[in-house]
Amino acid sequence: MLYFNNDYSEGCHPKILEALAKTNLEQTPGYGEDAYCRRAAEKIRSLCRREDAAVHFLVGGTQTNMTVIAAALRPHQGVLCAVSGHINGHETGAVEATGHKILQLPSADGKITAEQVASAVGAHRADPSFEHGVQPKMVYISHPTELGTLYSLEELEELSETCRGLGLYLFLDGARLGYALAAQAGEMTMADIAGLCDVFYIGGTKVGALFGEAVVIGNPALREDFRYLIKQRGGMLAKGRLLGIQFDTLMTDGLYLSIAAQGVAMAERLRRTLKTLGVPLLVPGITNQVFAVLPDTVLDALAETFVFSEWERVDEAHRAVRFCTSWATREEDVEALCQALEKLCRT
Amino acid sequence: MLYFNNDYSEGCHPKILEALAKTNLEQTPGYGEDAYCRRAAEKIRSLCRREDAAVHFLVGGTQTNMTVIAAALRPHQGVLCAVSGHINGHETGAVEATGHKILQLPSADGKITAEQVASAVGAHRADPSFEHGVQPKMVYISHPTELGTLYSLEELEELSETCRGLGLYLFLDGARLGYALAAQAGEMTMADIAGLCDVFYIGGTKVGALFGEAVVIGNPALREDFRYLIKQRGGMLAKGRLLGIQFDTLMTDGLYLSIAAQGVAMAERLRRTLKTLGVPLLVPGITNQVFAVLPDTVLDALAETFVFSEWERVDEAHRAVRFCTSWATREEDVEALCQALEKLCRT
Amino acid sequence: MLYFNNDYSEGCHPKILEALAKTNLEQTPGYGEDAYCRRAAEKIRSLCRREDAAVHFLVGGTQTNMTVIAAALRPHQGVLCAVSGHINGHETGAVEATGHKILQLPSADGKITAEQVASAVGAHRADPSFEHGVQPKMVYISHPTELGTLYSLEELEELSETCRGLGLYLFLDGARLGYALAAQAGEMTMADIAGLCDVFYIGGTKVGALFGEAVVIGNPALREDFRYLIKQRGGMLAKGRLLGIQFDTLMTDGLYLSIAAQGVAMAERLRRTLKTLGVPLLVPGITNQVFAVLPDTVLDALAETFVFSEWERVDEAHRAVRFCTSWATREEDVEALCQALEKLCRT
Amino acid sequence: MLYFNNDYSEGCHPKILEALAKTNLEQTPGYGEDAYCRRAAEKIRSLCRREDAAVHFLVGGTQTNMTVIAAALRPHQGVLCAVSGHINGHETGAVEATGHKILQLPSADGKITAEQVASAVGAHRADPSFEHGVQPKMVYISHPTELGTLYSLEELEELSETCRGLGLYLFLDGARLGYALAAQAGEMTMADIAGLCDVFYIGGTKVGALFGEAVVIGNPALREDFRYLIKQRGGMLAKGRLLGIQFDTLMTDGLYLSIAAQGVAMAERLRRTLKTLGVPLLVPGITNQVFAVLPDTVLDALAETFVFSEWERVDEAHRAVRFCTSWATREEDVEALCQALEKLCRT
Repeated sequence: MLYFNNDYSEGCHPKILEALAKTNLEQTPGYGEDAYCRRAAEKIRSLCRREDAAVHFLVGGTQTNMTVIAAALRPHQGVLCAVSGHINGHETGAVEATGHKILQLPSADGKITAEQVASAVGAHRADPSFEHGVQPKMVYISHPTELGTLYSLEELEELSETCRGLGLYLFLDGARLGYALAAQAGEMTMADIAGLCDVFYIGGTKVGALFGEAVVIGNPALREDFRYLIKQRGGMLAKGRLLGIQFDTLMTDGLYLSIAAQGVAMAERLRRTLKTLGVPLLVPGITNQVFAVLPDTVLDALAETFVFSEWERVDEAHRAVRFCTSWATREEDVEALCQALEKLCRT
Repeated sequence: MLYFNNDYSEGCHPKILEALAKTNLEQTPGYGEDAYCRRAAEKIRSLCRREDAAVHFLVGGTQTNMTVIAAALRPHQGVLCAVSGHINGHETGAVEATGHKILQLPSADGKITAEQVASAVGAHRADPSFEHGVQPKMVYISHPTELGTLYSLEELEELSETCRGLGLYLFLDGARLGYALAAQAGEMTMADIAGLCDVFYIGGTKVGALFGEAVVIGNPALREDFRYLIKQRGGMLAKGRLLGIQFDTLMTDGLYLSIAAQGVAMAERLRRTLKTLGVPLLVPGITNQVFAVLPDTVLDALAETFVFSEWERVDEAHRAVRFCTSWATREEDVEALCQALEKLCRT
Repeated sequence: MLYFNNDYSEGCHPKILEALAKTNLEQTPGYGEDAYCRRAAEKIRSLCRREDAAVHFLVGGTQTNMTVIAAALRPHQGVLCAVSGHINGHETGAVEATGHKILQLPSADGKITAEQVASAVGAHRADPSFEHGVQPKMVYISHPTELGTLYSLEELEELSETCRGLGLYLFLDGARLGYALAAQAGEMTMADIAGLCDVFYIGGTKVGALFGEAVVIGNPALREDFRYLIKQRGGMLAKGRLLGIQFDTLMTDGLYLSIAAQGVAMAERLRRTLKTLGVPLLVPGITNQVFAVLPDTVLDALAETFVFSEWERVDEAHRAVRFCTSWATREEDVEALCQALEKLCRT
Repeated sequence: MLYFNNDYSEGCHPKILEALAKTNLEQTPGYGEDAYCRRAAEKIRSLCRREDAAVHFLVGGTQTNMTVIAAALRPHQGVLCAVSGHINGHETGAVEATGHKILQLPSADGKITAEQVASAVGAHRADPSFEHGVQPKMVYISHPTELGTLYSLEELEELSETCRGLGLYLFLDGARLGYALAAQAGEMTMADIAGLCDVFYIGGTKVGALFGEAVVIGNPALREDFRYLIKQRGGMLAKGRLLGIQFDTLMTDGLYLSIAAQGVAMAERLRRTLKTLGVPLLVPGITNQVFAVLPDTVLDALAETFVFSEWERVDEAHRAVRFCTSWATREEDVEALCQALEKLCRT
C-alpha cells in the first residue's frame, strides 16, 4: 500500500537521523537546557527577526495547544476558534480539560475573519450579563487550516490588528507551517508571522522531524514562567536535546523550507492531474493537502493500492477524500497515484 | 418600576418565610443532615414515585449543573446540549471549568431531539479517529427551555429511550420545572420526569424559594459519593436545613404546583392581550415566559414603567423581548402591563 | 440535647430575619447588583478604611476559598497553608479541583509564621529544578485558625511584609472573623486586616447570618473580572440581595461585633469553669472555641445531654473535645454545661 | 566533564538507534496503531504473564503519571503517596492540575507501608465528616523510589493485598524499573509486579530509550477508554511507532534487563569504593543511584571533573550528594570517579 492519508507516516529526514546518531552518546543537561536547544532557538529567533522572542520545544501539537492556552488564560477566559479548528474537534477536549471553553465561530473554509472576531467580542462586551458568558481573550487559528487553506498576509494583518485593538492574544497553530511558508514563498515569511502573532509554533512532526513543535512567544506577557507550564502539562522531555538537535538541523541551510517545498510540489503534481481530469476540489488549496471529490467507484478501486483519508460524503455517488503529501513523499508514488486516477477516471 | 424581566426579583413565598422564622432558633445538625432535609427528600421521593431515588439540595442552578456533570462524567466525556442551553451560554464556562466539553447541537426552539442525539453519538462512534473526539456520555436538556418551550411526554420518552439505548445519561435542568408541570398539568407529572431521566432537579429559586434546587438522582450509577462532590464544588450549605425547610414547605399541600400555576396564569393573561393586539410571539409558549415581537417605539415607551429583558433585534423597527411572570406576580401589575400595551399598540 | 458542637446550629440573628421579612416582596435586580449589596459593601469599605476595596458577597466558605484562589493564581502556582488549614483537610479537595496544589507547612497551633513562608519560598527559588516544583504565590491563613488561635497584630504585620517582599498574596479566611475581632478588641481592627491582607473575607455563616461571606479585595491585581469567577464557580446567588440585606444588617450599629462578643463571652464563661476544675486545654484560646482535655468517663456522661465535637485521643483515658459557642448560645445553656462539668469532674 | 548527575544524559542504546534508522522510511499508521507497537505490547504482556493486560506507550513520566491518575479517579478521590514521591514534589503539580489531591504519607526512605495505607484509609472512613475530606482511592509508589530504595516482594504483596481489601488501586511508577529488576534478580520479576499492581509502567527514558514509558494496565476497570485519556493529556505521539520500535527492541533478547544490570554494576563498583573509604551512605541502596555523604572539601574538588546532584546538607562540613549511573555509563568513567574519590578522601 502507498500511504497518502497523512503527513506523519514515515520517520524523519535522513539528516536528522544522522545528527541524532552522531550526538547519541554525548552527555548533556536535560529538560531543554542543553546547547542544541539553545542553538536551535537562536536560529529560530533569527529567522523570526525577534531577538527577544522566547522559544520552547514541545513534543506534539495537542500538548502544545493546551499548554499555550492554559498558560495564557485566566479561568473565565476562552479562545475563539473556527468550528473546524483542530483544538475544537480533534484533541479529545484537551483545552476544556484545562478548564477553558472554546468559543466556536462558523467557517466554511477553515479560516476566521477579523470581522468575526470583532463581532464576537463586541457582542460579549455589549451583553448586560457579560459576566455570565465566557470572556473571549485569545484567537486560535491554524495556518494552514484543517482544510489546507491559507491566510493571506493582509488577512493575518487584519486579524492581528483586531486582536491588538481588542486586547486579545493571537495564537497561530503552525503544525504544518512549513507547507504554508513554502506555498506562500514571496508572500509571507516566518518573520511576518512572528511579527503579527503573540505566540505561534513551527511544526516539526509533519515537516521532517520525528516529533517536536517549536513555540515562539513574541508577547512578553505570555513568556513568564512558561517552562513551569511545559513541565506541568507533561511536555518537558527529559532528553530535551532530541528536540534541539532536530530543530537545529531543520533550521540549518533552509532545510525546513526546502523539504516542505518538496511536499508541496508533490501535491501540485496531483492537483494538475485532477484538474486535467476535471475532478473538482472540495476546497481550493496550494499546500500539501488535496481535497478531491471523486465517484465512489473510483475511490473503491483506488483504495486497493492507496491509503487516503475519508473526509465527507458529497452526494449519493461521490465522496470527498483527502490526499496528503509530505517531505517524504516519493515522486514515483505520486506518479503511480496520478496514473491510477487517470486510468480510473477515464474508464 | 414594575419588574417583568425575570422570575427571581422578589424574596420567597410567605409560607417559607414563616417556616424559617418559626424554626430559626432550633438547633440542628449541619450540612443537610437534619430532619427537615430528610422530610423534604421523602416528600419529593413520594411525588416522584421513586422510593430509591437520592435527593440532594443545592443552592443554585449553575452550581447544580456543574456538580451533577462533574460527578457523572469521566474526563474525556462530554455533554450534548442545545446551542442555546443555559450551561452553554449563561454560566461563564462552569462546565468547562470542571474539564468537560459541551457538545453543541443546533436548535431553533431551545429543544433537542432524540434523532439529533442518536446522530451525534452515531457520528462519534463511526469516526475511525473517535478517540480524538470527546465522547458523548450525557444529554442535558432544560424543561422549560431557555425559550420557554416544553418537551411533550412523547418527546421526553423518545429522548429517554435513545439515551438508554446508547448508554448515555439524561439530565434535565428543571430550574423552572414548576411552571412546566403547571402548564402541562394532565400531560406530564414529576413522576414521569423521574422515570424518564437519570437525574433532574426541581428548581426552587424561581418558584417560590429564596434559593435552592432539589436534585433527584434515579440512576444508581450516579448516586455514589454525590455528597463529596457537593462539598467539593462549594454547594454544601452549612445550615443545610434552610434548604430542607424551604422544600418541605413547597412540597406540602401542593404549594409548589399551585404557586407555579398562578405564575403561568399571569403569563396567559398577557398572551391573551398580545394575541388580541395581533402582536406576534418569537416562540409560542405556555409557561411563565412570553417572547413578544414589538415595535421599538412601543418598547421604548413601555420601558418607562416596566422592566423586561431584551432578547434580540428582529428587524429595523422591531425587537423581541421577554416578559417573565412568577409565583409573585400580582394581578394588578399584569393588568397594568396589558393596559399599557393596549394603549401603546393601538395608537 | 444542647448543641455545643459548632457555631452554625441555629438560623440567624432576629434582626436579619426581620430585615428579610420586611423586604421580602420588594423587586430588585439579581446577582448582587441591588441597592442592599451596594449599601452593605459601602459599610464594609468604611469599616476597612479602604474606599477602593472591591467587596463581593458569596454564599459559603469553601466556595469563597476556591473562588479567591482560582481567581488569583496561574496554573503552576500554589498556596502555602498550615497542614491543619481548612482548605487542606476539610473542603474535599476543592482547591485542587481548581487545579492548584496546597503547599503544606507544619503547624502545632494552626498558625504559620513569616519565617516559614520566607523559608519555603527561598527553598523553591534556590532549587535549580524550581520549574519542576509548584511556585508558591499565595499564603492562606485563617483568623481564628482551625484551633481557635489568633495572630497577633505583629505576627500579621510580619506575614504581610514578608509576602509583599516576596511577591506573594496574603489571603485571610475570616469564616469566624467576628470572634477574632471581638476577642482582640483594642488590639486588631478590621481596618488593620484590610490594610495587611491582599484579600480576606468576613464570615457571616458562623456569626449571625443564615449564610454568606463578604470578600474584601484590597489588592487591585486581584480585583479584575472577579464577578466572572463567582459566576463560574457557582457562587453568584440569583437573589443576591439576600446577602446584601444580611451584611447590611450585620454591619449596622456594630451588630456583627457585638453578637460575636456575646459568643466569646459564653466561651470565656466555660473556660473559667474549666480552669477552676483544673481541666487542661489542648490549645489556649480566647475566641468562641474551647478545646478541653477530659477523661473518657466525664465525656461519656456529658454526651447524654450535650453535643460537642470529638477532636483527638490524648491518652488511654483522655480525649480532647471541642466546645463551640456562638452569637446564639444562651447563657442558661452554658450554665448547664458548666454545672454538669463541675458535677462530673468533682466526683 | 563526566556526568553522574542523572540517568538521562545520553541518547539511546545503539540497537534502538539502529532499529529507528532501519525502519525510518517505512510507512505506518499513526497514534500507536502500528505493528511495532502491537509487537512490543505482546512481548510485554508475555513478560508480565498477563495476556489480558492493556499496554500503552507514552512519552514521559510526568505525562504518564497524570494520565493514569486522571483516568482512574473521580473528582473527589485522591492518591496516597510518600511525601518524597515524584508526583508530589517534582512534577509542578501535574496531578493537582488534573483536579486531584495528593494525600501525603511521611516516609524516611521513600517507601510507604501497607500499614500506613490502611491507617490513612481507616481514618478517612471513620471520620464522621468524611465527605469533607478527599477520598483515598489510589496508592502511588515508585520502584525504585526517589531515594533508590526497593520494595521487597513481601512488602509489595502486603501493599497489594491491603489495597485490594480496601478497594484502592495500586499504581507503581517504574521510571527506573529496569534497575530495580536487575538489582532484585531472583527476588522479583516483571510478572510479580504485573500480578500485584493494578497499573504500572516500565520506564524507557532512563533505561536505554530516547524516551518512552510503557503502561501496563492489569485491572480491567482501569482499561476502558484509556486511549482517549492519552490523547486528551497530550501523550499520543503522532508517530507512535517510535515508541513501539524502541520497546520492541528493549524487550527483545532481554536487552532491557541486561543493560539495566550493567548500570547497576557500575553503581556497585562505586559503592565498593565508598565502603572501602568508609564514606557513609545517606540511604543504603542496590540500584543505580548512590547517595553518599562526603566532606565539602572533597565534593568541591570532585566538582571540577564530575557532575553529580546536590541532595541535602548533612552538617556544617558535609553534604549528601547523588551519583547516578545508567546503561550508558562507561567503566572507565566510574574508574576515574573511584580513583578521584580515593585520592581526595585519603588526603
